[in-house]
Amino acid sequence: MLSTMQDVPLTVTRILVHGALVHGRTAHVTTWTGEGEPRRRSFHEVGVRSTQLANALRDELGVEPGQAVATLMWNNTEHLEAYLAVPSMGAVLHTLNLRLPADQLGWIVNHAADRVIIVNGSVLPLLAPILPGLTTVKHIVVTGPGDRSVLDGCTARVHDYEELIEGRPWQYAWPEIDERQAAALCYTSGTTGEPKGVAYSHRSIYLHSMQVNTAESFGMSGGDTLLPVVPMFHANAWGTAHAAFMAGASILMPDRFLQPEPLAEMIERERPTIAAAVPTVWQGLLAELDARPREVSCLRNVFIGGSACPPSLMKAYEERHGIRVVHAWGMTETSPLGSVAHPPGGLSAEDAWPFRLSQGRFPASVECRLISADGELVPWDGKTPGELEVRGPWIAGAYYGGADGEPFRPEDKFTEDGWLKTGDVGTITPDCYLTLTDRAKDVIKSGGEWISSVELENQLMAHPEVAEAAVVAVPDEKWGERPLATVVLTDGATVDYADLRAFLAERVARWQLPEHWALIPAVPKTSVGKFDKKVIRKRYADGELDVTTLGRG
Amino acid sequence: MLSTMQDVPLTVTRILVHGALVHGRTAHVTTWTGEGEPRRRSFHEVGVRSTQLANALRDELGVEPGQAVATLMWNNTEHLEAYLAVPSMGAVLHTLNLRLPADQLGWIVNHAADRVIIVNGSVLPLLAPILPGLTTVKHIVVTGPGDRSVLDGCTARVHDYEELIEGRPWQYAWPEIDERQAAALCYTSGTTGEPKGVAYSHRSIYLHSMQVNTAESFGMSGGDTLLPVVPMFHANAWGTAHAAFMAGASILMPDRFLQPEPLAEMIERERPTIAAAVPTVWQGLLAELDARPREVSCLRNVFIGGSACPPSLMKAYEERHGIRVVHAWGMTETSPLGSVAHPPGGLSAEDAWPFRLSQGRFPASVECRLISADGELVPWDGKTPGELEVRGPWIAGAYYGGADGEPFRPEDKFTEDGWLKTGDVGTITPDCYLTLTDRAKDVIKSGGEWISSVELENQLMAHPEVAEAAVVAVPDEKWGERPLATVVLTDGATVDYADLRAFLAERVARWQLPEHWALIPAVPKTSVGKFDKKVIRKRYADGELDVTTLGRG
Repeated sequence: MLSTMQDVPLTVTRILVHGALVHGRTAHVTTWTGEGEPRRRSFHEVGVRSTQLANALRDELGVEPGQAVATLMWNNTEHLEAYLAVPSMGAVLHTLNLRLPADQLGWIVNHAADRVIIVNGSVLPLLAPILPGLTTVKHIVVTGPGDRSVLDGCTARVHDYEELIEGRPWQYAWPEIDERQAAALCYTSGTTGEPKGVAYSHRSIYLHSMQVNTAESFGMSGGDTLLPVVPMFHANAWGTAHAAFMAGASILMPDRFLQPEPLAEMIERERPTIAAAVPTVWQGLLAELDARPREVSCLRNVFIGGSACPPSLMKAYEERHGIRVVHAWGMTETSPLGSVAHPPGGLSAEDAWPFRLSQGRFPASVECRLISADGELVPWDGKTPGELEVRGPWIAGAYYGGADGEPFRPEDKFTEDGWLKTGDVGTITPDCYLTLTDRAKDVIKSGGEWISSVELENQLMAHPEVAEAAVVAVPDEKWGERPLATVVLTDGATVDYADLRAFLAERVARWQLPEHWALIPAVPKTSVGKFDKKVIRKRYADGELDVTTLGRG
Repeated sequence: MLSTMQDVPLTVTRILVHGALVHGRTAHVTTWTGEGEPRRRSFHEVGVRSTQLANALRDELGVEPGQAVATLMWNNTEHLEAYLAVPSMGAVLHTLNLRLPADQLGWIVNHAADRVIIVNGSVLPLLAPILPGLTTVKHIVVTGPGDRSVLDGCTARVHDYEELIEGRPWQYAWPEIDERQAAALCYTSGTTGEPKGVAYSHRSIYLHSMQVNTAESFGMSGGDTLLPVVPMFHANAWGTAHAAFMAGASILMPDRFLQPEPLAEMIERERPTIAAAVPTVWQGLLAELDARPREVSCLRNVFIGGSACPPSLMKAYEERHGIRVVHAWGMTETSPLGSVAHPPGGLSAEDAWPFRLSQGRFPASVECRLISADGELVPWDGKTPGELEVRGPWIAGAYYGGADGEPFRPEDKFTEDGWLKTGDVGTITPDCYLTLTDRAKDVIKSGGEWISSVELENQLMAHPEVAEAAVVAVPDEKWGERPLATVVLTDGATVDYADLRAFLAERVARWQLPEHWALIPAVPKTSVGKFDKKVIRKRYADGELDVTTLGRG
């Protein structure tokens, strides 16, 4: 039996029109400017300017449906205008990561065949070096102050954003859009291989925005003000910008002022109620608040994702500033929600902590499962680890345009039945609370069982004479893999491997104890400060480590 | 550019599996039983029993995808099990309105070609009289106690619900479902013409459930307990049952105990946090609470819809019981949300009242417009009335199966461009707050302007010597229509028409003043107590009213 409901597509256009019309006067986008007054625009003004931008992109810059328009921008009003205008006209918004090395940035722009780059004047120095290598870009649109002379000699036409949109029509005959068409493109900054594009659809962005606004996720509505510290080039600021425009929640945009001091100042002055950022931002802000107290109790919920948050940090915010920190898990391929760590109802504050320290549980639209090393389903017993796989309408099922321009599905990222392999290893409780323990590539697969490298590292680093420790898998004839513990001792330390092993033996199961050990002067790190285990594995393979192997007794 | 997101359908199956798996232990469905202990089942148990019911319907009762399975039930666990099982197996859940007259009920069952009726034992007396006329029903499934002898001689096979599902498998290979397939069928109880079926799709129910759980609507999540007093045969209990199962909010089912005293008792004992019902229920409960105080502060938000709620009632709950009453607007054809009257952020309690007394504003998925008598768009100025038209993915675009079984689109209900004509007349403010003033069929269309019959009635009834007043349109050569005021005076009243007209003249615009007047002994009412203006119009047309016409000066 066919339903009798209207067949109305879920589109970014609807978010644009709704936000501008229904919340046009009551909600605002405020962009911090450092010195001087913040730049404040109503949702109505943002809607009008988005419409003018769409007209300019089509009529002046020749952008056609399906073409990519890139942004190289901080979080600010103009970036949001591009967010709304570009997909609504049927084109694809491509958010470029400001922090990528120049060669990767150039590669991505060419791969996506970007026709236009909208860029903040303040980041022109990042754009200039890649310009000569760009093959598809016809127009550069610059917003705000910055030294534009770096664009001299560039073959693309250069425009000023405000001049470009000024006087353009306030109307646009928005095209009818298939909700499964791409609306936005974001490349994952994988450390291995070439960058891979995730092409979000109108449908996925719309559904994800609704989810963000449910009470089990961020629960934003008209009375809220969102502070998205997480960049708009990281999975669309975790989807919060679209969601806020949909719900009529005002937005406080930090632009490039991401240091603790201006963040504290803008929170005190503009009084956001909800904020989202990675743990390091909150760590820095806490130190700032402790040093120079501010009135920041306006913040109701602070969402943390990107990596695990130290419990001490969560408790410090709650106890010293009355701010509730909420854990969430996601990745570029998952839009990014993901799980959110709200505890079940009816628990005392103390009993709620284990749930809040987990990665949380999944909404109805994100189906999850854990898969063992043997490819079997892992029970949700809160103990048995497996690799997390997810499925749902806002989860990627492929990557954008391989060599031949077709979507591609690498075997290590997607299962045959279409689920995303997250590369994260963890456990799930009977109540569906996820705890991540390791990255799949770092886990040690020993005789059909998994040993968490992170768990061993944490236990080792609890030893007073261990400064740092990184554990990697090394090949083993009998067990497949076994752990190698590389350890950085503190100055003047006197322990030996047997002592460390005995220390560990009190804390982890016997079969998990590393037999291979090496002292190293420092753990190699990636550009963002994470342990770079690739380097350790290579040094081991190249025989560069001085490894001692203890008997298993 | 095609997106790279997974193509996962939005289905009731996902709600069933998610609720049972993720919230299986933490959320419960509790059904009030009057005397004795409530019947309490975890979401896990409900999920298992729903799966068993699906197996029974397929294997024992021969239900096939696309066929209709009807329910004639109060709000209880078994009704929810049918809600989840029937659509998930690809069949269509048809909720029958317990309060319909027997002839309409029988007509609807035959029109929907129901194969099975699941019925509460307590309402068997309603079913018995229509049985002989049913042409498609092969099975009657009875839940709970009741005199089953009324089914003796019935040609359909009779089953006991518990015996039917007992021992059935806990697994079901749920079919892949196109999200646009019908999941549930609900007939509108229009007072004119034959009943019209609205066939909700899996997609519309899923999206609507997400919307109910957003903070701008009901905002339910894991910590909540929902009390749906609104019947599950009224637009699926306003979509709250699906939404609660999706969000993991527990549900307190009142079954047939809808009187103020048991409602007060179940609220005090089971502590729901959110409730939904029509104003008369809340009116009765308030009197009960005033007479016999109970601890009911557990209720955070109480949602009222179906008809306008007196401000005094809203204030009484807030001041005397700390319960916030929230207005919402919707209809069977709109799933039913609709608008919800949350005020904009940042207002004082006093300033928020005008917004809270309106019908509220619309979410992104419900596009709205007002259309004048001339078919023109009406500005959102908070003053100019128009007929409300709506569009969106959970709004009906047709009715189910006319004479030839095809969906049909009566011109008075749907526009050429596919919008639903709600039949409600009102105004919208620049911030999109809707205030309904009349039904389109009752409004007086005078010289291209609309006069609200309700407004004239309310003003007339403010006169101390007027007991009741009903205003209808009567034909007018010059103006098209003009108002006729029919008035019921209080005992011993001494006013005449000129006095009443002078009284009105101080309160409404001159051109709105009725020139036609008639005294009547009582205003005719419909079965649910509303003014029956059809009868007044007919009496006028038949010359049965003693009408006095005053000069317009």
